[in-house]
Amino acid sequence: MSTITRASCLALDRADELAGFRARFALPEDRIYLDGNSLGAMPRVASELAQDVVARQWGDGLVGSWNEAGWWQLPKRLGDKLAGLVGADPGEVLVTDATGINLFKAVAAALSLRPERRVVVMEGSNFPTDNYVVQGLLETLGRDYEIRFTEEEGLDAAIDDDVAVVCLTQVHYRSGRLLDMRAVTAAAHAAGALTVWDLSHSTGAVVVDLNACEADFAVGCTYKYLNGGPGSPGYLFAARRHQAGSGVPLRGWWGHEAPFDFVRDFRPAAGVARFATGTQPIVSLALAEPGIDLALEMTPTQLRRKSLSLTSLFIELVEGRCDGLGLELVTPRAPARRGSQVALRHPQAYAVMQALIEKGVVGDFRAPDILRFGFAAPYNSHLEVWDAVDRLQSLLRSEDWRAARYARRNPVT
Amino acid sequence: MSTITRASCLALDRADELAGFRARFALPEDRIYLDGNSLGAMPRVASELAQDVVARQWGDGLVGSWNEAGWWQLPKRLGDKLAGLVGADPGEVLVTDATGINLFKAVAAALSLRPERRVVVMEGSNFPTDNYVVQGLLETLGRDYEIRFTEEEGLDAAIDDDVAVVCLTQVHYRSGRLLDMRAVTAAAHAAGALTVWDLSHSTGAVVVDLNACEADFAVGCTYKYLNGGPGSPGYLFAARRHQAGSGVPLRGWWGHEAPFDFVRDFRPAAGVARFATGTQPIVSLALAEPGIDLALEMTPTQLRRKSLSLTSLFIELVEGRCDGLGLELVTPRAPARRGSQVALRHPQAYAVMQALIEKGVVGDFRAPDILRFGFAAPYNSHLEVWDAVDRLQSLLRSEDWRAARYARRNPVT
Repeated sequence: MSTITRASCLALDRADELAGFRARFALPEDRIYLDGNSLGAMPRVASELAQDVVARQWGDGLVGSWNEAGWWQLPKRLGDKLAGLVGADPGEVLVTDATGINLFKAVAAALSLRPERRVVVMEGSNFPTDNYVVQGLLETLGRDYEIRFTEEEGLDAAIDDDVAVVCLTQVHYRSGRLLDMRAVTAAAHAAGALTVWDLSHSTGAVVVDLNACEADFAVGCTYKYLNGGPGSPGYLFAARRHQAGSGVPLRGWWGHEAPFDFVRDFRPAAGVARFATGTQPIVSLALAEPGIDLALEMTPTQLRRKSLSLTSLFIELVEGRCDGLGLELVTPRAPARRGSQVALRHPQAYAVMQALIEKGVVGDFRAPDILRFGFAAPYNSHLEVWDAVDRLQSLLRSEDWRAARYARRNPVT
Repeated sequence: MSTITRASCLALDRADELAGFRARFALPEDRIYLDGNSLGAMPRVASELAQDVVARQWGDGLVGSWNEAGWWQLPKRLGDKLAGLVGADPGEVLVTDATGINLFKAVAAALSLRPERRVVVMEGSNFPTDNYVVQGLLETLGRDYEIRFTEEEGLDAAIDDDVAVVCLTQVHYRSGRLLDMRAVTAAAHAAGALTVWDLSHSTGAVVVDLNACEADFAVGCTYKYLNGGPGSPGYLFAARRHQAGSGVPLRGWWGHEAPFDFVRDFRPAAGVARFATGTQPIVSLALAEPGIDLALEMTPTQLRRKSLSLTSLFIELVEGRCDGLGLELVTPRAPARRGSQVALRHPQAYAVMQALIEKGVVGDFRAPDILRFGFAAPYNSHLEVWDAVDRLQSLLRSEDWRAARYARRNPVT
């Protein structure tokens, strides 16, 4: 502990092989941004791309841009790129719709491949949308479908011969815990079940290798570690072996075998395109490309190495400098069990985070008592980690967070 | 017929009370754009708004913009604005997701309110996504649900006591035919059924008065006559009386009663918010606002009057000047039965449209034999109608469309 200094953090930054990427992002000078796990920073080129898509492609190109600007091809073209980030093959990924909508499609598809089974295994502590989506799907299906809620430690026991689908978020949105995709997928397959992975907190942050793990389906978002912009579209991975046989509950003309024939009855397209629905939000979709391109300039191993360097440093500094100040580490200490964020428990987490943001360190709060700090390997530095912990320590010592203005108000609705 | 001249068209434009709006749109100088029913033109302010949303709100504001830039409130705030365009009340409309996704939600909600019935009435010739969406929903529901396909002339006979939902597109995407929302809704209600209206080709083009017609649910898109940009999000209307009782098959944390409590089980929000799903594509969503604002500067009656003036002029000129040149009017001649587009049948419609576009008149082709021309009251002029028909006449007389380069290639896929 005593060996870490601000100077040694600077030295780590000088040795950082990804240090050059920071300049490719627009980042405010006055803040240390540790919330890229909620909304990633803006690639600088996104600003001029927005101008091109809006003023030139839409404003001047108008309807001709569906072909000339390649709008129609965006879900597949970006999907083929994103495949390179998650260990998938071209033709296995679409960038389209929202993450939750894609989860609905993926779980329904997996269930259609296990028609005689009725159980979906999920973590009750998962990001709520995932649970809500599957609850909605199973109620719509009726026929005795049910969710078997468990937590990580109960997974092995929960996966038995009744299970059709194991649907898990690999990196937990609150704790930052990383599941072993290969081991869990193997356990699911051994029981005859299929897997649906939510990679929202994985892609761009940890090494994801879907096909090496024999994963079946996956979904994720592009607005966190992929820096695609607020609410930029999600993606869906369907292993090639499952594509032709999968049921498609959510449909649209983009998923039809012959979309421009405008025929009455649905016939699914060949390949992953069957999971496309209707016309996509092109501006948001097009803006997802720069972040994907940036991630492709690094190797997943480089990203992971830097990410672990940042999170390990943060944990070490917090434990060394904030001891006795009311924090408890929630994220697993073992690097192999950790994504790219660190969660700390504090009984007054909301007030502490508000005060910390006012001091220029942007993390976020997750109810009821979690301080969450995300570390983006392409743009965060070791020096920022030092300075963030320095300010956190001084805030906790001073107890400035007790000021009335930091008390929790009603959340926005 | 003989009384219409280019000069008389110019005179109509000089008397046009909406003429001032054209300058508010970016329109290419070299084309007559009659495809706003596919993709509306860009409001000039959209270009700087895109810059603001991307560079300032995302790039600089980062995650704080969820509150400070009001991203979280966009679906409801834009929905309340859009309500004023469709005769709905604030709190009855959300701008969110894609049109087809909203149709899935609306039809499912309506079915949940008629649990003892199993039939959905639709037009087989409807825009295919609508049919595909309902086919997918009913297959997911199982339990003997079925679509009873008919066409306009068979509607009365099709709506009987077995029908749960009548799901129709008010203005037909091909023919431009306008259904009488009040009469069809009354017929549905008399049989104990509910209605789901697709207003994609209605809003911003014809007078829509959902509550006066006692409509139950409706959906639509914002990228045609509302000029929201390519693939900008759709909207969903749920009459207040149905909101609390409606089932919600597609869920997400934005539709939860207490979204920031992050609880495991879904409890629908009060009001129309229950139909929200997950995080929305903010850039595309924010860019939908200028077009909605522009439409709100006109009255629906003004829009409708100008629209009918343009379409009537087009029909009259085509019939007068293109007689014997192979065209057949598909759109109803009676103004009260017509939306804001005119469809003409031609056996070589694809080639004719390609050639016409090359001559600077942009309409579109719909398989197998339809030339489709959309007229946007806020920016199209009577002079453009004259010039478009002039070029169409000369093209058909010259038969230039027979050139090999206009032959239909495989559609983009």
